[in-house]
Amino acid sequence: MQWHGNRLSSTVTGERGPRHSAVSCSPRVRRVRGAASGPDRGFQLPSARDHDRLLPGEPRTRDIARGLYERVRSAPVISPHGHVPAETVAGNLPFGNPADLFISSDHYVIRLLHAAGEPLQDLVDPGGDPRKVWRTFARHQSHFAGTAVAVWFADSLETVFGIHEPLNEENADKLYDAISTALMSPAMRPRALFDAFRITVLATTDDPLDPLEAHAELAADPSFAHRVLPTFRPDRYIDPGANGFRENVERLTAATGGAPGFKGYLDALRARREHFLRHGAVSVDVGVEDPFTAQLDPREAERLFARVMGGGATDADRRLFRGHLLWRMAEMSVEDGLVLTLHPGVRRNHSTRTFRGFGADTGHDIPLRTAFTDELRPLLESFGLEAGFHLVLFTVDETVYSRELAPLAGFYPSVFIGAPWWFLDAPDAILRWRAAITETAGFYRTSGFIDDTRAFLSIPSRHDVSRRVDASFLARYVTEGRLGLQMAETIIDDLVATIPRKAFKL
Amino acid sequence: MQWHGNRLSSTVTGERGPRHSAVSCSPRVRRVRGAASGPDRGFQLPSARDHDRLLPGEPRTRDIARGLYERVRSAPVISPHGHVPAETVAGNLPFGNPADLFISSDHYVIRLLHAAGEPLQDLVDPGGDPRKVWRTFARHQSHFAGTAVAVWFADSLETVFGIHEPLNEENADKLYDAISTALMSPAMRPRALFDAFRITVLATTDDPLDPLEAHAELAADPSFAHRVLPTFRPDRYIDPGANGFRENVERLTAATGGAPGFKGYLDALRARREHFLRHGAVSVDVGVEDPFTAQLDPREAERLFARVMGGGATDADRRLFRGHLLWRMAEMSVEDGLVLTLHPGVRRNHSTRTFRGFGADTGHDIPLRTAFTDELRPLLESFGLEAGFHLVLFTVDETVYSRELAPLAGFYPSVFIGAPWWFLDAPDAILRWRAAITETAGFYRTSGFIDDTRAFLSIPSRHDVSRRVDASFLARYVTEGRLGLQMAETIIDDLVATIPRKAFKL
Amino acid sequence: MQWHGNRLSSTVTGERGPRHSAVSCSPRVRRVRGAASGPDRGFQLPSARDHDRLLPGEPRTRDIARGLYERVRSAPVISPHGHVPAETVAGNLPFGNPADLFISSDHYVIRLLHAAGEPLQDLVDPGGDPRKVWRTFARHQSHFAGTAVAVWFADSLETVFGIHEPLNEENADKLYDAISTALMSPAMRPRALFDAFRITVLATTDDPLDPLEAHAELAADPSFAHRVLPTFRPDRYIDPGANGFRENVERLTAATGGAPGFKGYLDALRARREHFLRHGAVSVDVGVEDPFTAQLDPREAERLFARVMGGGATDADRRLFRGHLLWRMAEMSVEDGLVLTLHPGVRRNHSTRTFRGFGADTGHDIPLRTAFTDELRPLLESFGLEAGFHLVLFTVDETVYSRELAPLAGFYPSVFIGAPWWFLDAPDAILRWRAAITETAGFYRTSGFIDDTRAFLSIPSRHDVSRRVDASFLARYVTEGRLGLQMAETIIDDLVATIPRKAFKL
Repeated sequence: MQWHGNRLSSTVTGERGPRHSAVSCSPRVRRVRGAASGPDRGFQLPSARDHDRLLPGEPRTRDIARGLYERVRSAPVISPHGHVPAETVAGNLPFGNPADLFISSDHYVIRLLHAAGEPLQDLVDPGGDPRKVWRTFARHQSHFAGTAVAVWFADSLETVFGIHEPLNEENADKLYDAISTALMSPAMRPRALFDAFRITVLATTDDPLDPLEAHAELAADPSFAHRVLPTFRPDRYIDPGANGFRENVERLTAATGGAPGFKGYLDALRARREHFLRHGAVSVDVGVEDPFTAQLDPREAERLFARVMGGGATDADRRLFRGHLLWRMAEMSVEDGLVLTLHPGVRRNHSTRTFRGFGADTGHDIPLRTAFTDELRPLLESFGLEAGFHLVLFTVDETVYSRELAPLAGFYPSVFIGAPWWFLDAPDAILRWRAAITETAGFYRTSGFIDDTRAFLSIPSRHDVSRRVDASFLARYVTEGRLGLQMAETIIDDLVATIPRKAFKL
Repeated sequence: MQWHGNRLSSTVTGERGPRHSAVSCSPRVRRVRGAASGPDRGFQLPSARDHDRLLPGEPRTRDIARGLYERVRSAPVISPHGHVPAETVAGNLPFGNPADLFISSDHYVIRLLHAAGEPLQDLVDPGGDPRKVWRTFARHQSHFAGTAVAVWFADSLETVFGIHEPLNEENADKLYDAISTALMSPAMRPRALFDAFRITVLATTDDPLDPLEAHAELAADPSFAHRVLPTFRPDRYIDPGANGFRENVERLTAATGGAPGFKGYLDALRARREHFLRHGAVSVDVGVEDPFTAQLDPREAERLFARVMGGGATDADRRLFRGHLLWRMAEMSVEDGLVLTLHPGVRRNHSTRTFRGFGADTGHDIPLRTAFTDELRPLLESFGLEAGFHLVLFTVDETVYSRELAPLAGFYPSVFIGAPWWFLDAPDAILRWRAAITETAGFYRTSGFIDDTRAFLSIPSRHDVSRRVDASFLARYVTEGRLGLQMAETIIDDLVATIPRKAFKL
Repeated sequence: MQWHGNRLSSTVTGERGPRHSAVSCSPRVRRVRGAASGPDRGFQLPSARDHDRLLPGEPRTRDIARGLYERVRSAPVISPHGHVPAETVAGNLPFGNPADLFISSDHYVIRLLHAAGEPLQDLVDPGGDPRKVWRTFARHQSHFAGTAVAVWFADSLETVFGIHEPLNEENADKLYDAISTALMSPAMRPRALFDAFRITVLATTDDPLDPLEAHAELAADPSFAHRVLPTFRPDRYIDPGANGFRENVERLTAATGGAPGFKGYLDALRARREHFLRHGAVSVDVGVEDPFTAQLDPREAERLFARVMGGGATDADRRLFRGHLLWRMAEMSVEDGLVLTLHPGVRRNHSTRTFRGFGADTGHDIPLRTAFTDELRPLLESFGLEAGFHLVLFTVDETVYSRELAPLAGFYPSVFIGAPWWFLDAPDAILRWRAAITETAGFYRTSGFIDDTRAFLSIPSRHDVSRRVDASFLARYVTEGRLGLQMAETIIDDLVATIPRKAFKL
């Protein structure tokens, strides 16, 4: 039985006749010696991909992992942090072309094509030929072999489009046409896919001044049964190093009719958080270079605000202000109940020439060494023990998993260990993360999976990767006698339901 | 055959009639599909736990691991660093209630209960109801699933109390009563358990001014055949940041009749080390924020001492003094032969409110990024090549395993890589530690296992975890053709005997 | 069939009669229970080592790994970075004694003997008795058990000398004699071994003022069909902290007839690079404490040069100069096309007493915490997007693999992830490296294997380790359904051929 093919393709393409008719594909991948292969079953095309993919190789552990995975593979998708625009869903807009879907909008993809020698200009030019971009991606498939991108890309082709053959230069045009054709189907519109993907909650990421009209429209629509929630992302209004910071703050204060000065600024932030809350928001997301926090005397804060707005601020001033505003975000979260999620530790726009030519999010954000213990302490001294406060910590520096995150979340009831951010779809990295934190903090001090993606069509594949890898991790613990099977079953059920619901107050 | 059940329970509970009669437990854990299960054997209750627990899943490697583990599973226990009070043994005092034994006194347990939302007040209140604490722990078992605590807790229940069922809310009272009853048995007194646990050496951790009467009593007692050794822990006398540092130093100098000034202070430290040596001590243990060391000109040291005692010291002064005293501890170790063990890299008492309410060691020490290469260099330049000097380096920052510890211990004859401290009972972490150091420094530059525990009853379980995991690591190397089986057998024998004896000069 | 024995020994020792006659060895290693063992086949001695060594334990994955390894085990050796002197090859000089070959010249070996308590004096004394050194090494074999040294040492004994028994105190003299005898054979001269080892390219590491006569001699010799290429190693001419820096610079400028001042100094460096290019060099290798880089205004650079040459320089000046010269090396590489390889992050000569007594490279270089993101940014801002520029980044700090190296090489077309330097022959460390980088950057942004060795005779063993471990890693991805077998086959073929050829422009 074709698990995945059944799950999504039958929903998505079922009304267009025989399954997989969109693409006439033949088996191209050589079989691994020793891999189980069943007899041909009539119309079913042989799958290019292993039904047990991402499960551990050792047979007994694999059996247990398969059983755990089966429990949750069709469970509803909760996506409490991501970057799909609400307008896409509200307008039920058709998706663009295959290149837009999978390549140009995904900086994990374009960065590796760029590293392989392809000019960014050719990859992100909105006036360019998407078929050419698709062919370029096809030509460089070996560069993606073994990467996280390869995992979800192959899975999305198969489960959303019923394409079982790996992309290559020869079939690039055929697959492009097949996907393009499929995208014209009403079944491939966002609202239909919401059902097909079993998404129950989808959080977007939004500017504090966003009126959130699309969210309101969806909430008011009786024909749309799912939750699409905004997330308050205040970076450009609280980081004095952001482009146009001063103008941003002025727009913010003006929009809310706030008084001038630091108090008015804080009131404006509170007002916009309130606006987000009214539209269903559950969290505030902050991205910073380092997770430094600072509590300040109000008069000192007022003077600091004057300096960062007036232009006389030093680098130290800007860092102090950023650290204080992060502390203020926590203070407001204690007041209004919004979960605070933190994404620190990245040098954004590392290549200035690329940033000038192509803007942000073009593949050259590079991680920095990160530390939390002393940096977060002022915030945690003030709010770490507050009932109902939730702080979810993400990182791209794997060294802090066992050294800082697990001990912090293993003591403070407010701290949750965020899913492994840049490595959300990277099976080895997920296993490293689980191995580093579980022995100290267990499974119930984590955030649950977030997909963090702009690519709506890849959402089920990303959650599927997470479920397979968690099943693999749990199965190993069962095989090694560290966990009873019944407890492992409870845990995997909770990992896709109660755990993210608790961390994100859903 | 019930390996563990036999080993300890028959000793501990044998005189109370049929085995395991203390608890009438029925099998509750679902069997893992595919796991071997023998026929029912009369009175033997089915075990909730896998006899091969913690051994690798791959069958051939597991067979080899089992064989290696069998060689050492009943080997005598050497515990060269821990926190059991000598008075417990000298007085042969009965253990308290189950909550004291396993929960209130173990900050790895209470921190996770606190993170799960339980107020510390309820967990550590000496006037509280221990049965209520036990029920709280039972209610939160899912929070501990997969953690290091879960590993040794289940093992201790089984091997010390013959309890084969996992703790849960339903059986909490029954298990509490069973343990309470068992604790009244003479077989459960410390001296009887010393025999049952096959402990040959147990080191305690003691204040430099401790008269060490309990140690003297045990050494003089012809009926007690084991070694209980004090460990000199001078932190509060050598770290100017410690609470009451000045008063501590004054008490120290007064107690030894030393002259005033820096020289008298050093003489007082020497005198107390001598006192410890006379009572069998083999090591000095120092805990510091970072392993910074400094050699100072004597007059500069004298002036620095005056500043830290007089109150005019800066943060830099205090760090320099601490670094110099660590250097002095090494100097004295070269003189008197005491092994110097170092536990750096932890921010103690991260939550000030918790510290004020409940004191130290309540679960909120949080690790810091640590580096040794430059920090330890002054000490190693002075003493690293001295014959007979032993320096055992512990860390909670896993990044230094391959980067610094293995290269240092792979060159300096004085440096030993300490067992992985906070992760001593965490199987995945132990494997990471071995994998990170072995390829550079092998097995013979390590300290051997230390259990570092306050919980006397958990000692055999902790050593058992270590032996199982080391067997697993060695078995993998055998399977991968990197180690002959004979050599692996020699190594596992040495890991529980000659290796700790050498590192700690036992 | 004896894979390795066949491959090299038949070539090397075939003319001396029956195979392995040099050593009459009997089987000494106990067989691992369950390991396959074939019937005795006449004259073939049983192997002490597993033909599947370093392959994964899980049988299906092992089968796949074996198949992948078989594809490349006899592939030509490309060695684009190492430390064999060209004179050895040009002069076709016989190798010395077994102790020189395997012990005294290898600081990974002598450091662990030193840590085991052996005085360095006895190990490196050129006037000492090599047989005594060999016996010392034999006596301490348990210290090497599980280390990277043990892996290639056993492999070299077997494949180069046909010795299948592990070295120990009893057979030390016998093996010493056997190796000594074998070394007298013409088949054991460097040029014959070049053929036997299938080395096609061997890069040496050379002083910028080296006339490169040996390289010229080899290039002009029609009887020598292989490439022996120099590598430009300018450290002592560009690091003001180097011993004799000022005199080195003066010699450099004098040798090239350059003008005085900074411009003349840069011209001299350019002229010597040109000299290296004319002798076939493909790369420049720089070793620094940290990978800090700086672009400077020419006049500022001129003044800084005057200070570091004149003696008025501060530590900050020296670091700035070093950082600027690294930037200049990149600038020159953009001009002349030489690949720039970078080896940062080591505190050299950690033990001053040892350095004074025995010089550099005596086992006490100790790694430092390393970061690239901000440090390299000035260089990458200037040259990171330049067509044809190649920068290969090595590290001994494993934390930067996933955090910095993979993201940098996953964006900049110029950046390649270097093979894992100190861990080149350490199977677990290689697997950690691959697991940390592959999900972000794949296989094609890496440098390919370098052996980095002084020990010519160990070259095939080191490449063999790399091939086995890469096969193991790829096989796991195949078993886990993350990579088709066909793609895995392509990748392993490329890893030993097109990938190093591309990174090093061969």
